[in-house]
Amino acid sequence: MKTIAVDMDGVLADVYRQFIDMHFQDTGEHLVAEAIRGLKEREAFPLLEKHVHTPGFFENAPLIPGAKEALQVIHERYKVFIVSAATEFPRSLQEKQAWLSRHFPFISWQRMVFCGSKEIIRTDIMIDDHFKNLDAFEGETYLFTQPHNENASPGRHLRVGSWQELARLLVTDVKAHPEG
Amino acid sequence: MKTIAVDMDGVLADVYRQFIDMHFQDTGEHLVAEAIRGLKEREAFPLLEKHVHTPGFFENAPLIPGAKEALQVIHERYKVFIVSAATEFPRSLQEKQAWLSRHFPFISWQRMVFCGSKEIIRTDIMIDDHFKNLDAFEGETYLFTQPHNENASPGRHLRVGSWQELARLLVTDVKAHPEG
Repeated sequence: MKTIAVDMDGVLADVYRQFIDMHFQDTGEHLVAEAIRGLKEREAFPLLEKHVHTPGFFENAPLIPGAKEALQVIHERYKVFIVSAATEFPRSLQEKQAWLSRHFPFISWQRMVFCGSKEIIRTDIMIDDHFKNLDAFEGETYLFTQPHNENASPGRHLRVGSWQELARLLVTDVKAHPEG
Repeated sequence: MKTIAVDMDGVLADVYRQFIDMHFQDTGEHLVAEAIRGLKEREAFPLLEKHVHTPGFFENAPLIPGAKEALQVIHERYKVFIVSAATEFPRSLQEKQAWLSRHFPFISWQRMVFCGSKEIIRTDIMIDDHFKNLDAFEGETYLFTQPHNENASPGRHLRVGSWQELARLLVTDVKAHPEG
């Protein structure tokens, strides 16, 4: 069974929605997609440092649409590990594990990895929204589209725009062409 | 620079000393080394489940003697990652990170990994006291002696009895024979 490292922030957890909502609560300003496209996270969200340190930020993040259904299907065909950069914000560790256990009860604690850098992670496949993680990775790579990477060429990575697309690529197409 | 994955419990953190001390506090019985040699952790420490769930268990663990000095020296010659099984006990996550930051301030958050299984960790070298982690690992392996593994043949792993021995093997011998 092939192994997959699935990123959390921006791939399973909609932290960008959190930033936009919290920015609106703090400033009354609504950050629209067009305004933040192509910007690095700290440029797009000037209050990022404050918001990631707010208790509950990670635990209350909404789900990326379709993630739950697609990951359930992928989980039946692959050995799924959730690999999340978390040690930069120590409080996030327990919040992230609680969030994962709530939304993805089929992902056991054995399949969770909370790290700083992902450079020592080895799986067959990695799904991430950050080039810094994918570029250093030796296996098959999927770039999950988010505003901060939307203007960049995906290079050797396969760009995917949704969990529906991922499930189709990883499960449906494999079923249709099992020798592929 | 070669990468090393260093285990925490039983290698950096003296959790067995914690179990022995807490067992004595709870029962008045002093577990001597001879009595627990070769036993699995849950056999040696019947109150393990209670103790690992006690707040502060991981944050207050004593250091394995010599770990701090040796790891400082090793850190100057290798890219050191601390890789600790932690997600079985979610509360341990933040406690472990706090413990590491206090005792090993030269280990940055980028070099910490908290996981369930270590099967997707790839470094050049792994130091651990558990066969389950070393056996599945493809690189160079060091078995750190603890009562639970003391009676077992180390197999392909190199058994080490102390941090002084590790520093000698990883740093002094390499310096003396740089081509080795």
